Amino acid sequence: MKTKIGIGIIGLGTVGSGVAEILLRNGDIIKRRLGIPLEIVRAVTKDTGRPLPEGLNPAAVGTDAMQVIENPDVDIVVEVMGGIEPAKSYILRSIENGKHVVTANKALLSLTGDDLFRAASQRGVDLYFEASVCGGIPIIKALREGLSANRIESMYGIVNGTSNFIMTKMTQEGKEFKDVLKEAQELGYAEADPTFDVEGIDASHKLSILVNIAFGTPVNLKDVYTEGISGIQPLDIRYAEELKYRVKLLAISKMKDGSLEARVHPTLVPCSHLMSTVDGVFNAVYVTGDAVGHTLFYGRGAGSLPTGSAVVGDIIDIARNIQSGSCGRIPPASFKEEHRIALNILSIDDIVSMYYFRFTVIDMPGVLSKIAGILGDHKISVASVIQKGRKEGGEVSLVMLTHEAVERNVKSALQEIDSLSFIAAKTVMIRVEEGK
Amino acid sequence: MKTKIGIGIIGLGTVGSGVAEILLRNGDIIKRRLGIPLEIVRAVTKDTGRPLPEGLNPAAVGTDAMQVIENPDVDIVVEVMGGIEPAKSYILRSIENGKHVVTANKALLSLTGDDLFRAASQRGVDLYFEASVCGGIPIIKALREGLSANRIESMYGIVNGTSNFIMTKMTQEGKEFKDVLKEAQELGYAEADPTFDVEGIDASHKLSILVNIAFGTPVNLKDVYTEGISGIQPLDIRYAEELKYRVKLLAISKMKDGSLEARVHPTLVPCSHLMSTVDGVFNAVYVTGDAVGHTLFYGRGAGSLPTGSAVVGDIIDIARNIQSGSCGRIPPASFKEEHRIALNILSIDDIVSMYYFRFTVIDMPGVLSKIAGILGDHKISVASVIQKGRKEGGEVSLVMLTHEAVERNVKSALQEIDSLSFIAAKTVMIRVEEGK
Repeated sequence: MKTKIGIGIIGLGTVGSGVAEILLRNGDIIKRRLGIPLEIVRAVTKDTGRPLPEGLNPAAVGTDAMQVIENPDVDIVVEVMGGIEPAKSYILRSIENGKHVVTANKALLSLTGDDLFRAASQRGVDLYFEASVCGGIPIIKALREGLSANRIESMYGIVNGTSNFIMTKMTQEGKEFKDVLKEAQELGYAEADPTFDVEGIDASHKLSILVNIAFGTPVNLKDVYTEGISGIQPLDIRYAEELKYRVKLLAISKMKDGSLEARVHPTLVPCSHLMSTVDGVFNAVYVTGDAVGHTLFYGRGAGSLPTGSAVVGDIIDIARNIQSGSCGRIPPASFKEEHRIALNILSIDDIVSMYYFRFTVIDMPGVLSKIAGILGDHKISVASVIQKGRKEGGEVSLVMLTHEAVERNVKSALQEIDSLSFIAAKTVMIRVEEGK
Repeated sequence: MKTKIGIGIIGLGTVGSGVAEILLRNGDIIKRRLGIPLEIVRAVTKDTGRPLPEGLNPAAVGTDAMQVIENPDVDIVVEVMGGIEPAKSYILRSIENGKHVVTANKALLSLTGDDLFRAASQRGVDLYFEASVCGGIPIIKALREGLSANRIESMYGIVNGTSNFIMTKMTQEGKEFKDVLKEAQELGYAEADPTFDVEGIDASHKLSILVNIAFGTPVNLKDVYTEGISGIQPLDIRYAEELKYRVKLLAISKMKDGSLEARVHPTLVPCSHLMSTVDGVFNAVYVTGDAVGHTLFYGRGAGSLPTGSAVVGDIIDIARNIQSGSCGRIPPASFKEEHRIALNILSIDDIVSMYYFRFTVIDMPGVLSKIAGILGDHKISVASVIQKGRKEGGEVSLVMLTHEAVERNVKSALQEIDSLSFIAAKTVMIRVEEGK
């Protein structure tokens, strides 16, 4: 019977510091849950200039990851350094050494998660990664355990806090994308190079992890359609509001006749839907299962302590496995390796969605009929139309919501429409989800 | 190595039928997660007139609970018959027989949960009860595992679907409590005798379970202050809306200087707060932890399949324990028995809250000053006042929101005020929570 569990932390940046802080500060209550203490045996960091978390013994801190990975007193390795290499090698080496691993590394998991899952399964150690998606929200655990009785039907996620902060500010204050981005950078909510967050890449990484464990399928990142928010204009946010929708960067996945949809893009969400009220840096995932129906999981998607909460939750889970001799109790990928089935992920051209269009047209008779005619020819039926402004011969906005249509048809129709003489600018298209 | 796990179900009512239906319908996907099948060995019911769930072998159905409890092929007993006895005896006997137990029985758990927890711990079997609180929402798992790194600071729950349906209808349609109750009864959302739901008793049972596992403390039901919604009038809902609040039946628990608050009552919640948007029969719990910050868990709180989803999720959890030989991996009460600490639960008189008052006064000069004076004498400071209507010498409503005050002082002040000559009716008092 072990009398304590040894923790090794690789990386003492934002997340690593949060992990250490929680382990030190909440040691008493963790021990009340677990029966024995968790001890930080070793923590390593390259950033030796950063102040150490309060209470962390400086003698336990080093710079060489091998002091964690090869340390016989370390039961659980916490990889919170980020990046692909050497993080991947460190994790694989830890697994080889029979150590359990907790990681928050979504980029690594979305690229080569299956390799890591397999290595951990074969070695009989645990690999947990709650912190990789939606920070402190226990969404991985919900999909893997809480909702395990269900056939998951769909997931809608607001999984990138930076984008959600920007969309919220643009909505509340009517500001341009580039101005809000600058604010977000000043507040530390966006990186100097924000591409990863605002172009949907981070969200697609997280979606691929959620899809993997919710549907029991490997996911190739390149099959996840990814479009960011940098092209969203305040005008469209305003028109969406008028139509009682808000614009959110959604990570969407649905089962559809045995195939999967997996896509990240700006989306009109009805104001009456809970997801439209998830604001600022908060994250949420709206999961529908065949038995449970609709559920929502909401919380902070980033930050030192919220992400640390997820990492330490995983550590406690593994410690409970160590204590009861049940490591490998749940497969890392949530489904048994031999029962994972590679599902087809639909091309974006094959999805069926509702759409928001903003046509910039020269205001003259016959325009609406011509546009509606071309849409009809492509099997796209119009649900509602608003013409904004009225100036004979001048440019006006013609805003439309469609019923469900096939994306391929939408693209053909818009190409045809955009070549018409009275179209004064490229048509804006944003997908719409009722979130049912 | 077991090749299947045997399930015995006691009760084939709404929940039991849902459990059977999910086990039968989703057997394939459950097997992909678990590796081996779950088999309904025996199901017993007293209601032999009710049609059996589709696919359930009639030969596996009986009427005598002993066919489940004493059955050597049953690994997990599912108690979904409800009520105190014989449910308690059945559970204890199952535990004695070395069987794991899943129950949805909140009344039983809130009354004698600690006895059951102790029996299960001593016998080394699992006792899981996700379905006892908030139906399909995996809130017990979140508190016991996902948020286990945290010191829980507060929980606000909408945990009774019947009350929430009634409050939502009263809000949306301006109807009287008794009329909406009748509708709810016709729709099957309320029982013929609705006392349990509308007087907050069911909510207090659920709160006591949540408090028990979130704070690691035994809870005596009589310490949970309980007040229902039957006294709520449409007028107060309307005034609350004007002040940008909605009225919800909330189950509230907070740590306060080492003591606990645990109370159920109608509450004004700001319209800007997520909890105010949880409508109809949906449930939600807003949990704040010291590391994770604010989180929300939302979904259906009742119904055959949502509740069945929670029961079957527990079954899968226990099946994973059986497979890995780790039953008793997590204590039923979430904290280790020897580390549970009996916390003091504050009397309702000692809580600090904000308040909504509606005074019915004879419209005459000096009234406001007299009332404000008495409130001030009792250390209650007024945040805002609206006088509704104006008719010299007639009855009008004077609506107030206060800053934080001690409940004992509020009661004394209202007693004094209600004895004044210009007070025409008993003053309405509803507590207000900002939900921070």
